[in-house]
Amino acid sequence: MATSKPHVTVQEVGLRDGLQSIAGVMPTDEKKRWIDAEYAAGVRHMEVASFVPAKLLPQMADAVEVIAHALRYPDLIVTALVPNLKGAEKAFEAGVHRIVAPISVSAAHSMANVRKTPLDMVEEFGRIADLREAMGRRGPTRLIAGLSTVFGCTLQGDVPLDDVREIVLRVLDIDCDIIALADTTGHATPGQVDRFFGVLRPLAEDRLTVAHFHDTRGMALPNTMIALQHGIREFDASLAGLGGCPHAPGATGNVATEDLVFMLESLGYHTGIDVEKLLAARAIVQRALPGAALFGSLARAGLPKGYSNPQSETKAAA
Amino acid sequence: MATSKPHVTVQEVGLRDGLQSIAGVMPTDEKKRWIDAEYAAGVRHMEVASFVPAKLLPQMADAVEVIAHALRYPDLIVTALVPNLKGAEKAFEAGVHRIVAPISVSAAHSMANVRKTPLDMVEEFGRIADLREAMGRRGPTRLIAGLSTVFGCTLQGDVPLDDVREIVLRVLDIDCDIIALADTTGHATPGQVDRFFGVLRPLAEDRLTVAHFHDTRGMALPNTMIALQHGIREFDASLAGLGGCPHAPGATGNVATEDLVFMLESLGYHTGIDVEKLLAARAIVQRALPGAALFGSLARAGLPKGYSNPQSETKAAA
Repeated sequence: MATSKPHVTVQEVGLRDGLQSIAGVMPTDEKKRWIDAEYAAGVRHMEVASFVPAKLLPQMADAVEVIAHALRYPDLIVTALVPNLKGAEKAFEAGVHRIVAPISVSAAHSMANVRKTPLDMVEEFGRIADLREAMGRRGPTRLIAGLSTVFGCTLQGDVPLDDVREIVLRVLDIDCDIIALADTTGHATPGQVDRFFGVLRPLAEDRLTVAHFHDTRGMALPNTMIALQHGIREFDASLAGLGGCPHAPGATGNVATEDLVFMLESLGYHTGIDVEKLLAARAIVQRALPGAALFGSLARAGLPKGYSNPQSETKAAA
Repeated sequence: MATSKPHVTVQEVGLRDGLQSIAGVMPTDEKKRWIDAEYAAGVRHMEVASFVPAKLLPQMADAVEVIAHALRYPDLIVTALVPNLKGAEKAFEAGVHRIVAPISVSAAHSMANVRKTPLDMVEEFGRIADLREAMGRRGPTRLIAGLSTVFGCTLQGDVPLDDVREIVLRVLDIDCDIIALADTTGHATPGQVDRFFGVLRPLAEDRLTVAHFHDTRGMALPNTMIALQHGIREFDASLAGLGGCPHAPGATGNVATEDLVFMLESLGYHTGIDVEKLLAARAIVQRALPGAALFGSLARAGLPKGYSNPQSETKAAA
């Protein structure tokens, strides 16, 4: 029964996107426990680290060790974020399955964040693709263009669809596997997601398969539903919605993995993830980051009385 | 332009469903200010009171005065909730445009709440319909069957679709205008909403037009999107999500009116409601109920930079 349902991939990005905005550094052993717990819950895609200079982001100083731990699971797809060619080289060497390189579509955000224009970042992305070829990693390592601030930006405000379209077209000329659209600042509305994917999916076809929504204004799940209608089949999420925006107290960051899985399973999509185990895994994050704000609607209220866990049913039927 | 968009009605129920679970009694003048502010924001449907004994619910002791104030606006559709025949008589006398009588589908909830079975409540609803006829109010007052705990119940857990189906069938035999389905305890998931409306809409056709979702587990907006696909065109909501469940601290109650309007407008539905004015109206509730917890994702993060208010555009175009 369960295997006949359409599969949707949920990638845990809490270890990268969640942690990068948290002041306290999570000990490496706790990161490993977090990976173990999510693996045990059925998560098979994780973005576990980024290759940025340790002095800029001490949280990611243990990237190589964390990746090595994740790679111990033979069926876990391990992704790392790289901001530039130098980071990419390290990520290829670390042996990750996927590399995601961010390209901010908002010029204001791109300049403020990396002091490069969006087109500069596209060029850097092209160099990363060339490096992949040169290092003989074209087969084993998939390359993802992570378009960020696609739906708006806290600096620039509105990001025109034409700007996104131009970046998508340029990225399509580069030898990469996947284009991901990220609502980095929680600007996206369902109507906008519908409009943007309506134009961009026909353009990029099956290379545009990933969406990354933040729940800043409570729109992450409605946006996900619209993206599903456009054929998107992979979504990023962060356990406990870790990674709130430091500039907006109480504003949530990534959509909570457990909320996303709960919704997807209710809609009949098969994620392979056990939401009860995800909820239990929050304790690892809570303990390792005592000061950090955790989010998530499901954890706040608990699973509904009478909840029937699709993963338990799958096991019972097997 | 704006008038060609499909219209969706958002009914503000904070003055009834929101306030009924709040310990502090809101002064009548503040209730009037709240009504005024929402009317100014474009809200044209409000459930403003319930006719329950004042000693049981002091919050609603001023029902007649609050209704009289709301009725001063000639194009505001004023609804009152009535738990029984006695309350209905008072509501008819007060001159409301619509009466909603709750029928809890969960036997456990119904017994705990009103010491009657769901079928007893259906019978009482039939007597209310007869009273409407006898009082000559069949024309001016629309009668709504408010089916509650439709998607689950904190006492009973799962509520089978067959139980809901049976109640809907019996209510359809009664001379009423509208059937509303309420997720009283925030159990509903989008998949379940799809399943339930898929069976019940063909049965009740255009008498089933209203949904009432709670955001307890963050599913109110996804549930709304599914209900829209089934032709539902009226949704209840509560400003600032007022009305959290007293048994689950931090758990939100009704979906926040401002979040719902924000999503609907983004999807191209015309609500006629100005979300910026709604956000400003939260101050009235905050001031009048200093201890009460307010919810709502939009208010927490603020409108996105570059937000274009559809209501301002409408005015500019007019």
